[in-house]
Amino acid sequence: MNSRIDELFGQKVSVINLGTETFAKELQTQGADAIHVDWRPPAGGNPALMAALEKVIESNEIDAANTKTLETYMDARPLLVSVERAIDVIPGMTPYTILHAGPPIAFERMAGPMKGAVIGALLYEGLAATPEEAWQVATSGKIQYAPCHDYGAVGAMTGVFSAHMTVHVIKNATHGNMAFCPIHEGSGYNVQRYGAYDADVLQRLKWLDEEFRPVMQAALQQTEGIDVRSLISQALHMSDECHNRNKAGTSLFFRAIVPCLLRADVSREAALRVIEFINANDHYHLSLTMGASKAALDAAHGIKNSSIVTALCRNGVDFGIRVSGCGNTWFTGPAQMVKGLYFPGFSEANANPDMGDSAISETGGLGGFSLGNAPAIVQFVGGTVEDGISYVKKMYEITWTENKHYTIPFLNFRGAPAGVDIRKVIQTGVLPIITTGIANKEPGRGQVGAGITTPPMDCFEKAILAFSEKL
Amino acid sequence: MNSRIDELFGQKVSVINLGTETFAKELQTQGADAIHVDWRPPAGGNPALMAALEKVIESNEIDAANTKTLETYMDARPLLVSVERAIDVIPGMTPYTILHAGPPIAFERMAGPMKGAVIGALLYEGLAATPEEAWQVATSGKIQYAPCHDYGAVGAMTGVFSAHMTVHVIKNATHGNMAFCPIHEGSGYNVQRYGAYDADVLQRLKWLDEEFRPVMQAALQQTEGIDVRSLISQALHMSDECHNRNKAGTSLFFRAIVPCLLRADVSREAALRVIEFINANDHYHLSLTMGASKAALDAAHGIKNSSIVTALCRNGVDFGIRVSGCGNTWFTGPAQMVKGLYFPGFSEANANPDMGDSAISETGGLGGFSLGNAPAIVQFVGGTVEDGISYVKKMYEITWTENKHYTIPFLNFRGAPAGVDIRKVIQTGVLPIITTGIANKEPGRGQVGAGITTPPMDCFEKAILAFSEKL
Repeated sequence: MNSRIDELFGQKVSVINLGTETFAKELQTQGADAIHVDWRPPAGGNPALMAALEKVIESNEIDAANTKTLETYMDARPLLVSVERAIDVIPGMTPYTILHAGPPIAFERMAGPMKGAVIGALLYEGLAATPEEAWQVATSGKIQYAPCHDYGAVGAMTGVFSAHMTVHVIKNATHGNMAFCPIHEGSGYNVQRYGAYDADVLQRLKWLDEEFRPVMQAALQQTEGIDVRSLISQALHMSDECHNRNKAGTSLFFRAIVPCLLRADVSREAALRVIEFINANDHYHLSLTMGASKAALDAAHGIKNSSIVTALCRNGVDFGIRVSGCGNTWFTGPAQMVKGLYFPGFSEANANPDMGDSAISETGGLGGFSLGNAPAIVQFVGGTVEDGISYVKKMYEITWTENKHYTIPFLNFRGAPAGVDIRKVIQTGVLPIITTGIANKEPGRGQVGAGITTPPMDCFEKAILAFSEKL
Repeated sequence: MNSRIDELFGQKVSVINLGTETFAKELQTQGADAIHVDWRPPAGGNPALMAALEKVIESNEIDAANTKTLETYMDARPLLVSVERAIDVIPGMTPYTILHAGPPIAFERMAGPMKGAVIGALLYEGLAATPEEAWQVATSGKIQYAPCHDYGAVGAMTGVFSAHMTVHVIKNATHGNMAFCPIHEGSGYNVQRYGAYDADVLQRLKWLDEEFRPVMQAALQQTEGIDVRSLISQALHMSDECHNRNKAGTSLFFRAIVPCLLRADVSREAALRVIEFINANDHYHLSLTMGASKAALDAAHGIKNSSIVTALCRNGVDFGIRVSGCGNTWFTGPAQMVKGLYFPGFSEANANPDMGDSAISETGGLGGFSLGNAPAIVQFVGGTVEDGISYVKKMYEITWTENKHYTIPFLNFRGAPAGVDIRKVIQTGVLPIITTGIANKEPGRGQVGAGITTPPMDCFEKAILAFSEKL
């Protein structure tokens, strides 16, 4: 008779593997049944983080603050009220201010496309006559660089904009605060937000300032403001996730603005040019979604004891988050590469790490958090339709509540996951899912693909430590 | 020891019930586990039908004809080319012709709303001065009633239209045939297609003729025609099922037509009125979908040995189907009641049986056949999001192929079920699913709800008998 150990090894081995996934894979290659469970100890097993989490995980005060944060966010009613020159409406903006996406970063550390966008801004503003001169001005100390977020603004991709560029003005009618977002220029081929600065790019910026801006102003004067939250709610039921798919939102906005343009005191030719500009760009609505999300989340920022994230953003080098109860501190970590689909002729070798303020959509429960609404987008960012739904389900694990305005029809109209709680991220190890475009790492070469990414865990680790200390 | 029979009855009874569902229900009310399986013998066990089915069920000739039918249907490229007066473009139309939805029906047998719509048409055409006079004219023998379908046309609900009413003109660019569909007048409250004929209704029809028609003509002259198949394909990826949800299709059409209207030689005021008319009606696109489906299915009609349905339609009393290989015979049965949701204040007591040519959408693989694309519609027609998907899966059992232009993202972009095969309906007992509005049975009272229905099996039984005889 065999010994018990012989008996064991004579049988087929079945293994449930925790921890390092390689063990399961090795067993699988040897023909054994092995499944890997992606279990991690809370806070990654890090004692300092575990102590911080322990301190904050059960707290009526924090719970109440979080509920207040999300109620404030959801009660916000962001309206598009005007289109203006940045310097005319953004407090603190000067002719030498250049705003950019993500957390603070010096010119020298900026990613290639962001540097390109700065060069373009300097040329556009007449602060330099040639690109060569612009490189000198950029590092001369004369220019004040700052995150869009710190000026009540958000910008897609490089997010770079300057004093005389054109922005949507979003007013939060409930709480009175304003938010700003540059006009989306169209597909990511030759556009300023990807760091291009040739004559066509600068000419388009000039047209936005000289014709688009006054025409849109006149149109918007026909309204009490266009209710962007309502457009987003509807677009979510029309297969947009409102970050990388904006076709429905753009179509609904088009229906809202066209009659205003025709009733406004502007020439028919100018109205037609503006109409054709918007109509040519299925992503036009992204900058309205971003501005509206920013206006609502800024109102929800600064609530004492709240552990809710009020901004997720990236500058192409660093990822940064802000937390409602932690003031204006940015908690940062390295921006990640994006997993996705590349346009023909490009690969990850061409890709810049994750970039842009557009993850304000996810902060507000859109994009990756509503991906199950947008089956058609998997053809753009990769993955399957089921992935989209499972991402959304995953996001309920790290959010505080469910959105009362934004719902997911395919989950029987359940509210979209709303309000990332840094405590839950640390506890579960689950990171926010972001859908995003992928920028060419060279300035001005534009978009090379689109995909899915997450923030680095570092942001949340730093945040939980600061948050628990502050408490 | 108990006998075996005592043993049996001492145990908990579990029953699988076939046939009459009441048996299962009775057992369930007595606390027994009983499930009902909705099994029916092929052809309902009817010997004549079984013989007919036997004769046609396996036939390379029929299979080849069906493939040709669906290829013809899918190759059709329906373009909106103009907006015209019916009498100017519909062959055979006279000042005394009144077309109606569904299979042929005499005025006396018409449903209440359809009679109302006829009265309205007679008033509008100036063939009667008062409703009282119109009732006399309607039965005077002077008026020629005919199905829209027999004139290359389709009409929603009553489908009633006359010589000087306004129709979309759809040209099938591949095969050259034309189709016609009246302009959708807006929500079903006080509109001609539900049999209303007050001054507002007649005034709207007049405006459609006098202003809308020439303005749209001028706009469409700016194009080579607007590709309706492309709009439908896109709308299906934006949560329309293109029968009872048309918000995306309407939005996309709006984006297509607005620049044409502004480039056309029409006044800005007139263009604005047309724009606001279309913009106010989220169902505008339905009449384009219907016209496009009709144009494509007419091209696929008349193919020898084909057992594919080329029209599903109802006049509010009878349901009628046409089969590609059976010439212009209508196979009819009683129009069914619609299961759905009623508007406040209404119930099934107010409802007319199923009515309208709009089931041409289902004939072409839209509506109930693409319901899984339109989760938001369950709030309108009742049921759950899962129901929508399961209806679509069911429709694959009775269709010949999958659509190469119309796809279902939530089924991983599988082609929508295309081409109802009467053989499969008889074999499986599964009936086509139709999403539809519910009309008040009184003339002119408009829509009272929306829901789901099917044709009666009678249509398919008559069709299979005729088809197998013809073979």
